[in-house]
Parts: sequence; C-alpha cells; structure tokens
Amino acid sequence: MGWGDLGAFGEPSKETPNLDQMASEGMLFLDFYTANPLCSPSRAALLTGRLPIRNGFYTTNAHARNAYTPQDIVGGIPDSELLLPELLKKAGYINKIIGKWHLGHRPQFHPLKHGFDEWFGSPNCHFGPYDNRELPNIPVYRDWEMIGRYYEDFKIDLKTGEANLTQIYLQEALDFISRQQASQQPFFLYWAIDATHAPVYASKHFLGTSQRGLYGDAVREIDDSVGKILKHLQKLGISENTFVFFTSDNGAALISAPKQGGSNGRFLCGKQTTFEGGMREPAIAWWPGHIPAGEVSHQLGNVMDLFTTSLSLAGLQPPSDRQIDGIDLLPAILQGRLIDRPIFYYRGNEMMAVRVGLYKAHYWTWSNSWEEYGKGIDFCPGQNVSGVTTHTQEEHTTLPLLFHLGRDPGEKYPLSMLPCWQSCVFEMRPEGFQIKSCQIERPLCHWDATLPKLTEPSDCYLQCPHQGFLPALNIKELWSEYLVWSSNTKRPWCQESHSLTYATRLS
Amino acid sequence: MGWGDLGAFGEPSKETPNLDQMASEGMLFLDFYTANPLCSPSRAALLTGRLPIRNGFYTTNAHARNAYTPQDIVGGIPDSELLLPELLKKAGYINKIIGKWHLGHRPQFHPLKHGFDEWFGSPNCHFGPYDNRELPNIPVYRDWEMIGRYYEDFKIDLKTGEANLTQIYLQEALDFISRQQASQQPFFLYWAIDATHAPVYASKHFLGTSQRGLYGDAVREIDDSVGKILKHLQKLGISENTFVFFTSDNGAALISAPKQGGSNGRFLCGKQTTFEGGMREPAIAWWPGHIPAGEVSHQLGNVMDLFTTSLSLAGLQPPSDRQIDGIDLLPAILQGRLIDRPIFYYRGNEMMAVRVGLYKAHYWTWSNSWEEYGKGIDFCPGQNVSGVTTHTQEEHTTLPLLFHLGRDPGEKYPLSMLPCWQSCVFEMRPEGFQIKSCQIERPLCHWDATLPKLTEPSDCYLQCPHQGFLPALNIKELWSEYLVWSSNTKRPWCQESHSLTYATRLS
Repeated sequence: MGWGDLGAFGEPSKETPNLDQMASEGMLFLDFYTANPLCSPSRAALLTGRLPIRNGFYTTNAHARNAYTPQDIVGGIPDSELLLPELLKKAGYINKIIGKWHLGHRPQFHPLKHGFDEWFGSPNCHFGPYDNRELPNIPVYRDWEMIGRYYEDFKIDLKTGEANLTQIYLQEALDFISRQQASQQPFFLYWAIDATHAPVYASKHFLGTSQRGLYGDAVREIDDSVGKILKHLQKLGISENTFVFFTSDNGAALISAPKQGGSNGRFLCGKQTTFEGGMREPAIAWWPGHIPAGEVSHQLGNVMDLFTTSLSLAGLQPPSDRQIDGIDLLPAILQGRLIDRPIFYYRGNEMMAVRVGLYKAHYWTWSNSWEEYGKGIDFCPGQNVSGVTTHTQEEHTTLPLLFHLGRDPGEKYPLSMLPCWQSCVFEMRPEGFQIKSCQIERPLCHWDATLPKLTEPSDCYLQCPHQGFLPALNIKELWSEYLVWSSNTKRPWCQESHSLTYATRLS
Repeated sequence: MGWGDLGAFGEPSKETPNLDQMASEGMLFLDFYTANPLCSPSRAALLTGRLPIRNGFYTTNAHARNAYTPQDIVGGIPDSELLLPELLKKAGYINKIIGKWHLGHRPQFHPLKHGFDEWFGSPNCHFGPYDNRELPNIPVYRDWEMIGRYYEDFKIDLKTGEANLTQIYLQEALDFISRQQASQQPFFLYWAIDATHAPVYASKHFLGTSQRGLYGDAVREIDDSVGKILKHLQKLGISENTFVFFTSDNGAALISAPKQGGSNGRFLCGKQTTFEGGMREPAIAWWPGHIPAGEVSHQLGNVMDLFTTSLSLAGLQPPSDRQIDGIDLLPAILQGRLIDRPIFYYRGNEMMAVRVGLYKAHYWTWSNSWEEYGKGIDFCPGQNVSGVTTHTQEEHTTLPLLFHLGRDPGEKYPLSMLPCWQSCVFEMRPEGFQIKSCQIERPLCHWDATLPKLTEPSDCYLQCPHQGFLPALNIKELWSEYLVWSSNTKRPWCQESHSLTYATRLS
C-alpha cells in the first residue's frame, strides 16, 4: 500500500472512512518511512528494529538488489536476531501474527520459534497458483500446523478477484483480542494482511464497491476491518490501554497498475525504488485518551521505530548488545517533540540516499534496468525525471543529487541541476559543497509562455535561486552522515548478519 | 492553486489548517473543475455561468490556444453577457470584487459596469515590473479610480517575495462584510486573491514559514486569511446566512515549479492543459447549519455552477434567453444528491476532452509545443505518458483516448492502449465502439519482475481487461455528447460571442 492510498492522504476517491477517522482520532504521520522498499527486509526491520543491512535481509548477489524471500529462497531470520515478540514475552505479553510472515519459510525460521505464541497465516505472499510438484502452492499455517494451501484450501479467484482471506484475518484478530481481554492478558498483535498485494483480492461483499477497481475494493475491505478492530477495542473497554499503529511495508507497486497497483500520491516512482514513492508510507497512531485527536506529525519516522516504541510502551529497554536503528517515538507522539534523526534509503546492501530534515541526497539513482524496462516492467510509469529515474545505476557519491522535499516532494528538481545552477561553479570540500560563483544566464519565464512577447528575458522574473540559497542546506551534516554510513556499508559492521542467498528450488 | 495544494487534499506538508477546518465543517468536493485551464476564461465562466466558447473568452488566433487578457489585449467581457453580480443586484445584493478581475482592462470592461458595486484590485495579474512608458506597470483600482500601480505604489519585492497585498485584500474583505452586516444588507463578495500566481508573494509575517518555500508561504497566508474571514462571519453572527465557496481558477502552474509552482497532487500536468492537473480544482463549500459537517462529495462540479447556485440561493432564476452551462449544486450540497452531468475540457475553442461519470475521453491531446519545450517550457515536468502528453496536437476524434479516472486518476493508462487491447480488433459504429475480437497475447507479470522465473506467462495473472470489460463504459453517451458539442464548436452557436483578439500594445 502506498502513501497516497488513504483518503486522509489525498486519495481522490476518499474511500477509507475508518482509517480517516482513525487519523482524526489519533496522529497522522506524514513523513514516515519503511526501512526498505520491498516486503521481506521491511518486515524484518520492523520486527528487529534494525536496518536490513544489519539483520541479514540483504543480498550480495548483485549491487543494489533488494533481498526477498519467495518460495525458492532458503534464507530467513537468523536466530541471533532478537525480535519484538521475543522481548515482549519477557514482560508477559502474548504475541500473535496474523497474515504474511515473510522472514523465511524453513522450519528454523517459523514465527513461533521467534517469539510469537500464535500464528495464522502464511510464510509468503499468496502468489500462484503454481499447482505443480516442482513448485507447490504457498502454505497456510495455524501455529505449528500447515492447514492448507492458497488456491487449494484457501481460494483466490484470479478472474473475479474474490477471496475471503481478509475476513478470516479479521475474525482471527477479533477472537485473539477478545481472548486476551477476557484473561486480562497484555498482548501484541501483528496484523499483517496482504490483500493489496498482487494478485489483489477482496471478499464478495466488497467486490465492485470502489471507484478504483479491484485494488480499491481491497483497500476498502482493509479499511473496514481496521474500523471493526478499533470498535472492538472500544467495545471491550480496552482502547485506552491499547496502542494501535497502521502503516505499510513498502510503497505501492506501480508495476501492477492500473488494475492491481495503488497510489504513492505525488511522490516519485514506487515499490523497489528508493525514491519517495518507494519508501514513504501512510502512518497513523491511535491511542484514545493518550494521543490528542486530530494531531499531525512531521516527525521523521520509520517502521523500525515501532520496535523501540513498543518496547518503551511495555516498559522494556531495547537490547544493549547490538545496534538498534529504531527510535522511541513516544516523545513525538505524546508530547509533540520532534526528534532529530536521519532516514536512510537502502536498496539491498547499498545506501542509495539519506534524508536529513527536508533535504534528501541521492548517492545512487536507479529505477530499474533497461533490460527489464524493455520488457515493459516500469517502476516509475508515466514519470521520467532526466538524470534521476535512471535505468542504469548512476553513482553520485562525489556530488549527490540533492532535493528539498518540502519545496519538491516529487523529486523532480535536483538542486544541483536547476538551469541556473548549471552555470554555477561548485567546489567540493570535505565539509561539503561551496558555490564558487553563479552566473544566471537564461532566466525562465514563469507565466503564459504561449505569448511570444513575454518570453523575452527582460520580461521575466528570475526564478532561479541566488547565491544565498545554498547556506540553508546543512550539507555538512548530510555529508558527514554519509561518510560514516557509507564506510560502514562497505565493511562489515555486518559480520553479525547473514546474507540471504538464492538457492535451488525446493522439491 | 492546484488540487493538491491543501492539506485536506493530501499536500504532504499539511500547512492549511484553516481550509482543512473549513472542509471538516463543510463539504469537500473531490471532482470539481474549472471551465478552462487558464485564468481569464475561467473567471469569465464563473461570473457568466457559461463556457468560454459562449461568453467570448476564447481566441481563434490558433488552434487549441487558451484566451488570455494580459495588458496588451483589447478584448474583454461583452456587454451582452449577464454577470452574476448584475443579476444579484436585482435581488438587492451589494457586490464587491477584491483582487484580480481579468475580464478586460479597457473602460467598457470595468467591473462596476458589469454589476459590481465596489472594486479593490487590478484588471490583471501583478506581472512586472515593466517600469517603462511602452508597457506601464499594472494598475490597481479602488472602484472607478486608479489609485496606483504594482511595484510603484503597491510594492512587490521580487528578491524576497515580500508583498502585503493579501493582507490588504483581507482587510478589504473584513471591512466590506462588516459594513453589509451593519446595514443588514445581503452581499456577494468575490475575493479573487492571487498571491500564488507567479511572481508569488507573501507578507513579512508569513515569509519563510512554510516547508514548501515561498509558494507555501503564499498558500499559508491565503489559508490564514480564509480562516479570518470565516471567523469574522461567525463573530458577526451571519455565518448561517452566508454561503462560502473556496476554489481556484486553474490547476497549479507547473512551469513555475519548484520555487513558484504549486501541486496538482497525483494528477497529470498542470495549468494550460486539459489533463486533470490543469482543470481539477480544490473546492470546499461552507455554510454552518445548512451543510452537514465533514461531508465529502463526488458531484462533478464546475466553477460555472457557482453562478447558477448563487442565483438559486438568492431566489433568482438563471437567464432564459441564453444557454447557461452551470448547474444548481444545491441538491448535491444540501441533500447529497448526485446530479448527472458531463464535464467539458476546452483549450481555447477546441473541446479537447469530456468526462462522463468516471470515464474521460480525450479527443485531442497536447501538452505544449516542441518549440516551447525546447526552450525549457514544460507543462508536465517529470511526467511523460507516451501518446498522451504529446508535444504535437494529436487528434483522436475517431478513436478517443479513454481513461477511467477512478482506477487511473493520473491518466497514465489509456484503456485503448493497454498491451492486451493492442491485439484487439475494434469497430467504430455510430453508437460507439465495439470490440470485435480480443486475443491476449502477452500478459504482463504484476509482481516482482526481477525474478526471472516469474516472468513466464504461465506464472502470471492476466491483468488485462477481458471482453466483458468495455460494456461498463457508456461510450454511446460520451460519443453522442461529443457529436453535439463538437458540431457546435465548429459552427457558431457562438454568434453571440466575441472572440478576444490580440492587438497592439497600449501606449
């Protein structure tokens, strides 16, 4: 699901009344990110509070390649990683995962071996149907037991898009919550539904109800389900004891658009990329009686923060024997304090970009390869920003492409590529850039350019930034952050981590 | 200002608390349009309730060229047109325009000759400074009297972006409202501010306050001013007697981006074009005690409707001696009834596209000319939809480019250009299209295309529409609408109207 998929985030159909209400009763995060633009590493980061480069969810098979756990990958979450439910258990929490696990499908990676007490769901996406011996359909588990497979025991009709899986996941959630409330048991529920992942599905009641087609039907069903879960908490009288956070694991997959793809709003590109569309996520915190209603936060947040924040809520300390990247968001959520922190955009094991404040520096740009593009696979359909959405991996480590995400959320105007800047002389120094001189040669006209007379430079307002423009950019901070992180990615702070490897297909 | 410029419409900085509150207290229109993607014809349409092709605000100088009234155009609103204030006057209303008139600057086009009782503002945009005899700076009027000129008597600092014009316009509005309230006088206030039009400006108090730069500062000042006007109405106890509507005259001018340009959200292109980004507008209706709070409407609306709706509110009938294109929105606003009506997208005197329901058919596509594009003028920066954002004027009258705006608000996937449709055989009939046969040759993969194994067609879900897909499209209705309108645009229903002509510069 993408940043732009909810009404509260400007989806033009505005079909998510429950999530919009959740936002109006809670806190809307507008600058919240995932840790990787692909599902497996993103979920691993959420549950470990650590970047994929630390927890092992990256691959060295190719440069800037996101790691992934489809059915034919043998890797998974290492035993050495401490997952959120393992830690919460120490504080007496009962933990359940409903839906997609995605942290490995082999027995040693089973969620009940990593802190969860209950599981209803699948180790992977509902891909398929494969329906053959060589590649069996994805299994569905209840706790330790495999109780069936997608397309066989759990139907998904690819022609109509009908599947009642979200309803099953909803009922699982309501039952779990009821049981914990009945026994006055603190709990952690990780409700990892996947109806908006292609092949997109919705149950019969929701099919055809959205202006947006099948994808919208799926969003509506998720929205309705979230509403039912929140109402259930209220009905049970535990809403003021229950912290609820809604977010997504990566930006909308634009390669599935228009029929199966969501929206990243006005952000650039989508899933798999380190542009904003790939990693900025819808995010809402809800906790009646604690979070003031209708708040909006510009705190830079990350799914990894849910690890640290949850521990904080449970009165636990994060592990001290390893680097934790997630921060405790409670000061931002409860006291409205903005915490200064960078956001790192990884693609596989390469740090592609970093955001500090409103500035984002791309050290590498890449959409997808020409080879894929030639096959009709496009991570940025309808978008083409020259020198930015590159189909070759372009290195900019000596002169990063800089964007101001406030003035240019769509990453269309690299500051260093503005027409007037092209006539500027830069000097690269250890502490950052410096403009040596800037000669504005050809100002652009900004109004009706169809009137020939007004295209004369003398009629035009100089819209280019002046020399005084750059100092607002804390490039020194950006650069030093990069130096630290960049050197670390090249050498193994990751000795502790385990690269996922592609291996032979399972029989 | 563009559709995506307000927090309520998903602007990522969410810096418009007053307009967002206005929406939460009133009705948000998500499918509201202007009548032309340029300011003059749009404003003429608003005040006459008629398409520019009827009221004369088009030009025949070139095909699909939007009409415009800069300082060196002699045309303006014809006496034969009946403007909203002229009609409201009959019901005892006092009418004031504050800000930009844009319907002609010669004496015969003066707003006080066309129904307004008061004017504070300018006949044109705050372009300049020209500062020369040949092209004097744009004048500012109080009623009949020219009281100064921009840049001379009314300062705009192009270097800092500082100008206190919005504050002057705000004070004018508050004073006017107070006076009418004191004399229990019904009134019509047309508050036509222009701070977001390049060269963008804001007053000192707002400069540097936005994440979005100067453009955001201007939006924040407008937002703050709207809040003050609404609070003033409440303070005076007349909010339940006063219908307030907020909208814009065209989409954000992306040619001014990033420093001076706004946002059209996820819509395609901007001002001057007939893609959604050029013509879909932010729109909010507010009328406490009458419009239920927090309503959202998908009524297809148009600025021309404000003419008819205002007459209806005043208990007046629209003129019966001419075609009025605006509809009365009150049933949609007060009773939530959706009124079936098309939206026509004109560029100059050419109907480029029409929307019926969620379908939009482009009969002509054009972004801007190669010649302009070569000069760096781009109406669709960072966007490039093959065969859609064309730099030549492409005619599609025999096979319109069809879009479904629910599934594809960004106009990226013409239904007739989907890969599978390319293997379909269409037949054009008087009543519409018919698919003769459809052979899906190469279905696309929809998920992680980086995994070679999954690119086999047999692994893929068929995401293309089937033969049963098209009947949902009421193409017959679209087509017959087009035939009527198209023939009318070619021959003069417009005998009544007066083409604006470009003429020699004023001395």
